[in-house]
Amino acid sequence: MIKKVLVANRGEIAFRIMRSCREMGISTVAVYSEADRAAMHVRYADEAYPIGPAPSAESYLNIDRIIEAARKANADAIHPGYGFLSENAAFSERCSKEGIEFIGPGPDAIRQMGDKITARKTMIAAGVPVVPGTVEMITDYNEALKTIREIGLPVMIKASAGGGGKGMRLVKREEDIESALRGARSEAKTAFGDDAVYIEKYIESPHHIEFQILADKHGNAVHLFERECSVQRRHQKVVEETPSPLLTPEVRAEMGAHAVAAAKACNYHGAGTIEFIVDDQLNYYFLEMNTRLQVEHPITERVVGVDLVKEMINIANGFELPFRQEELKQNGHAIECRIYAEDPDRNFMPSPGTIRHISEPLGLGVRHDGYVYEGYTIPIYYDPMISKLIVWAGNRKEAINRMSRALEEYKITGVKTSIPFLAKIMEAEAFRSGKYNTHFIEENSEFLFGKPDCDGVCEDIALISAYLEYTSRLQQVQLTEKVNKPVSRWKDPQRHAYI
Amino acid sequence: MIKKVLVANRGEIAFRIMRSCREMGISTVAVYSEADRAAMHVRYADEAYPIGPAPSAESYLNIDRIIEAARKANADAIHPGYGFLSENAAFSERCSKEGIEFIGPGPDAIRQMGDKITARKTMIAAGVPVVPGTVEMITDYNEALKTIREIGLPVMIKASAGGGGKGMRLVKREEDIESALRGARSEAKTAFGDDAVYIEKYIESPHHIEFQILADKHGNAVHLFERECSVQRRHQKVVEETPSPLLTPEVRAEMGAHAVAAAKACNYHGAGTIEFIVDDQLNYYFLEMNTRLQVEHPITERVVGVDLVKEMINIANGFELPFRQEELKQNGHAIECRIYAEDPDRNFMPSPGTIRHISEPLGLGVRHDGYVYEGYTIPIYYDPMISKLIVWAGNRKEAINRMSRALEEYKITGVKTSIPFLAKIMEAEAFRSGKYNTHFIEENSEFLFGKPDCDGVCEDIALISAYLEYTSRLQQVQLTEKVNKPVSRWKDPQRHAYI
Repeated sequence: MIKKVLVANRGEIAFRIMRSCREMGISTVAVYSEADRAAMHVRYADEAYPIGPAPSAESYLNIDRIIEAARKANADAIHPGYGFLSENAAFSERCSKEGIEFIGPGPDAIRQMGDKITARKTMIAAGVPVVPGTVEMITDYNEALKTIREIGLPVMIKASAGGGGKGMRLVKREEDIESALRGARSEAKTAFGDDAVYIEKYIESPHHIEFQILADKHGNAVHLFERECSVQRRHQKVVEETPSPLLTPEVRAEMGAHAVAAAKACNYHGAGTIEFIVDDQLNYYFLEMNTRLQVEHPITERVVGVDLVKEMINIANGFELPFRQEELKQNGHAIECRIYAEDPDRNFMPSPGTIRHISEPLGLGVRHDGYVYEGYTIPIYYDPMISKLIVWAGNRKEAINRMSRALEEYKITGVKTSIPFLAKIMEAEAFRSGKYNTHFIEENSEFLFGKPDCDGVCEDIALISAYLEYTSRLQQVQLTEKVNKPVSRWKDPQRHAYI
Repeated sequence: MIKKVLVANRGEIAFRIMRSCREMGISTVAVYSEADRAAMHVRYADEAYPIGPAPSAESYLNIDRIIEAARKANADAIHPGYGFLSENAAFSERCSKEGIEFIGPGPDAIRQMGDKITARKTMIAAGVPVVPGTVEMITDYNEALKTIREIGLPVMIKASAGGGGKGMRLVKREEDIESALRGARSEAKTAFGDDAVYIEKYIESPHHIEFQILADKHGNAVHLFERECSVQRRHQKVVEETPSPLLTPEVRAEMGAHAVAAAKACNYHGAGTIEFIVDDQLNYYFLEMNTRLQVEHPITERVVGVDLVKEMINIANGFELPFRQEELKQNGHAIECRIYAEDPDRNFMPSPGTIRHISEPLGLGVRHDGYVYEGYTIPIYYDPMISKLIVWAGNRKEAINRMSRALEEYKITGVKTSIPFLAKIMEAEAFRSGKYNTHFIEENSEFLFGKPDCDGVCEDIALISAYLEYTSRLQQVQLTEKVNKPVSRWKDPQRHAYI
């Protein structure tokens, strides 16, 4: 039985994993880089170990240091979270050699799914539909040209070791093939140390829909339905929701069965995600498998009513899944917004800095998974995601309205955030109607970015004017007189007005 | 259609109601006493009107002032929240006269259920079981003695206009009848301006279980299952949960049907609660009806998946209920803890003051309905409840563990709170087993109060020692060296250690 878990991660996901551990009576061990001494996960953990300088390669990606910390702490398991070493087969293998349980799949499943070409082959063998394209890796222009003529333009050239939009090139014209191939390979080499690429038919108006699966070590696997992840910017998810407004119950059941087949095809155990690309006619194709917990897992937790981290730990403990497929139901609707310290009106430039004030949205149907606090300085070394805002309601329309309300309540000063941009997405007709695909942000850019955001100077002016208004009101106000409040519907409760 | 709602209340409930209004696109109007100028509900509302000095009688209970504010703001409806004017028939009547929709039942239903003797008669006529006792009010010792000899000791003498434990006396011996009768009547006179009392059989080892009902203006009524409210201190609820660990599915269905019958018997519309007293053999008796939203309504919202405030507004708008009884299900388990600014180890002495720091519990399955913020001073004039912490999980054991985790994360400095006391309740064997009744706190007082809480001096010492430890660590820490963290499992992230 797992009694002490080392979380080989940082930020909101490390905090979130430790919360489930604590509820299960499991001790928690944090590791941290020099930049993360003041981080929330370090404070929340029962023990914490420094593992190196800020750059990830020297700390959160340093397998030796993490294993050393686990041995010192006597941790009997490691949860890798997402990113960093979560899909690193060598890490899973090393844990196993050290007698430390890796809370995730075995190294073979990670390798099989991590190599996109092997993954495609495995899916074809398992009868899971894949996007038309190459089965073997492509190294040569003529080979690429021949394949592309077979499947027809447009196509996508993709890194075999890829992920997160890196090493990808869209090709619409034959004359662009050569440079795209060269670009994808060199980017793949830089990002993943492996320049193998493959070619897939490019689906126009695509939807990105993924299925959550859970599989135990006894051959049982279930899916926990889908997440619609088509609101993307540069292949990065921005907003996710479940159920998908696109799927029919029949297609959902079919895709779910394929997702389970995909997990079984690689002898998977743990939590995993099967990503599909879906066109407007509901044709769907396997895209890739993420052999870890996803950022957007909370919307599944809310709609299906499970704690995915707890299930992962139970699976690692060797327990059988506590439910059968037919016992799992989707209940209501959940949406997640990823809150970033970045400036959407300045091309999403990261906005690291010190959090001066934070006022978190709460109340009925709102979950907020964060890790920053007042006075905390967001390091420049890592992904600038501040938190994830998740809402639930009985139906999609109410969930969107609740998200709007929550975004309106969410106030952070000190850094720029994507909150106003996300609020605009909630108002966009294409989003509200549910009829959107991965082109949503680019197709609605005028609506989403039309108005420049209030900048730092404007914020200071607002503060001063709120103060002046307040002091003048203090002198004038009579008990029976109406207090005229500022035009803004919501005032920052701690700092701006009315203090 | 209601477009603007005045909330005739303060604190967490005013804030909570406004959140639902905002999600529905309804404008909100706050009213506030002089003590509440800086209150959250004033800041969150679209408009706010001062209505008088701090004492409730001069502001939150002042019908004329509230109606005047509603007229000035052009509010087309008033939500009374709980407490204050929420069960005041004259207020409901006045709203109706002014052409303002009262979001709650009509004055007749409030009167019928507000007078406990009339309520008993109504329930008897509707076939709802009531506690054996008098049907008419008692004014005279001999009459009381005769009745008590009929139903047998022990008995409870209760104020007809009562509630909240006021005007109540337990009588175990005949010689105590006279003084108990006199005490109950004089207390009732003081508290409610009405000294009518009645007598009920006193149920030993009682459970307090209430049913949530919703009824529209078209004669439809449903129940939303029960809330177990037996963890009480001086007749005040401390912890509530749903489902009740006591009820069987059969008894639950029967009681639910009686709750719906009770609502129909008084032509009820809106949200209401039927309180039952239940003995260990699952005999149940109508206790009273609360003709308003309850403090503990969120646990029902979570387990049944509804927004009760939204349903109240829809009912006030004249809509039919959107669900039938058979569509409503209990899903998982929810628990609420009421967080008070009070000192459990000093006999629950209120602890008003200024919030120096607050760190709210969040994450999977946690809802936190609060209203205080850093720098806010809790006024001495009102109930010292700071917030309500609500958790959900798939089953009762996990819900208790989640509540423990959330209570551990919840940090407030500046005032004393009931958080450590609530954490002890979560650990108490009688609570964990689910085998508890309204005597729980008194029967487990040694476990719950045995250890004195850390006081202000101790808090300061902790702060200083954390600081000293931190500064010494800064000088000593080496990258590969284990950081020995303080003994406490959780450090206040903003103020204490590691900064």
